[in-house]
Amino acid sequence: MFIVFEGLDGAGKSTLIESVFKALQKMQIDCLVTREPGGTKLGENIRNLVLDPSTKLSAKTELLLISAARRDHVEKLILPALKKNQWILCDRFWASTSAFQGKARALPMQQIKQMNAFSTQGIQPDLWFLLDISLQEKEKRSLRRGEVSDTFEMQDQHFHQKVREAYLELAQKDPKNWCILNAMHPVKKLTQLSLQEMKKRKWLR
Amino acid sequence: MFIVFEGLDGAGKSTLIESVFKALQKMQIDCLVTREPGGTKLGENIRNLVLDPSTKLSAKTELLLISAARRDHVEKLILPALKKNQWILCDRFWASTSAFQGKARALPMQQIKQMNAFSTQGIQPDLWFLLDISLQEKEKRSLRRGEVSDTFEMQDQHFHQKVREAYLELAQKDPKNWCILNAMHPVKKLTQLSLQEMKKRKWLR
Repeated sequence: MFIVFEGLDGAGKSTLIESVFKALQKMQIDCLVTREPGGTKLGENIRNLVLDPSTKLSAKTELLLISAARRDHVEKLILPALKKNQWILCDRFWASTSAFQGKARALPMQQIKQMNAFSTQGIQPDLWFLLDISLQEKEKRSLRRGEVSDTFEMQDQHFHQKVREAYLELAQKDPKNWCILNAMHPVKKLTQLSLQEMKKRKWLR
Repeated sequence: MFIVFEGLDGAGKSTLIESVFKALQKMQIDCLVTREPGGTKLGENIRNLVLDPSTKLSAKTELLLISAARRDHVEKLILPALKKNQWILCDRFWASTSAFQGKARALPMQQIKQMNAFSTQGIQPDLWFLLDISLQEKEKRSLRRGEVSDTFEMQDQHFHQKVREAYLELAQKDPKNWCILNAMHPVKKLTQLSLQEMKKRKWLR
């Protein structure tokens, strides 16, 4: 099973992934946790380049770089894990490119689709979780964390609003493969809801 | 004027570029020397990743990465230099992608063309020099230099043969914009031939 978690930064993806991972481990499920951009040596290198605001990338260069990272990730980690029947919990996949570079950076959706097809080799997750968070809550959390701004964190509210809308649109268009979770729930509740969704699909007993 | 130098590694591109640069400087021509992949902070980063054999990239990831570097280079260096009426002497441009990733790595030429169009924004050099070298001579030179092998240097003769053929094909198909130089000439003679070609085009007196 290839399961992707999407959402705005601060929605709580990594905390939820960690918690779901532990729950699956307890059930003796062989599971790989990874992220995009990242996961491979090249991917993590590209992650640093893309998130560093001083690199000052145009939207199109960013799209090419993130696609290179994804292609490497799919070839070296995702496909081999699927072949070994491992489960994969992945923080972001092509939906992030549609939301960030497509909707928020306003690149032509046809270019995004072409690049996504090229970088993923057409593989699709079995399930997407959207950890949906309001902009007010996101703002509150990032003030609380007082974190250093990366390329995306430093964008304005309008940008994040576009990303959120793009995610909701993707999820609503494809309810069979997407599950929207309210990020206001505590992580314990979110973990339960995630596992429930997997049980519903008969992946777990 | 945007002038590109192409050829196999070891053909003597950088020595020739250096020499032509000095000659143009003497004529008071404002001139920028740059290279691909490279030229920008991101480009040089990508150059290191691509040339390092331990990164182990597939041909398609390599294509995406080199295209990202080119897009950044065109946006940040090439286009601004052309706007300032600077001359540009560039070591490699999209023909390298056609030759290395297209012909030698056997990626579909349509994908190469799409990616080249995307990364160059359609800009074309005013003149290409192909520094043509035989495989025997290339081999001899690289033994003499005893250099550390990078991703491309470590390829076999068949690979380099494909690259050479691809260059010759591009040059022969478009003789108006390409000038083939025999890399066996000493650099002084090659510089003269290069300047002659520019005079023929009335760029120099």
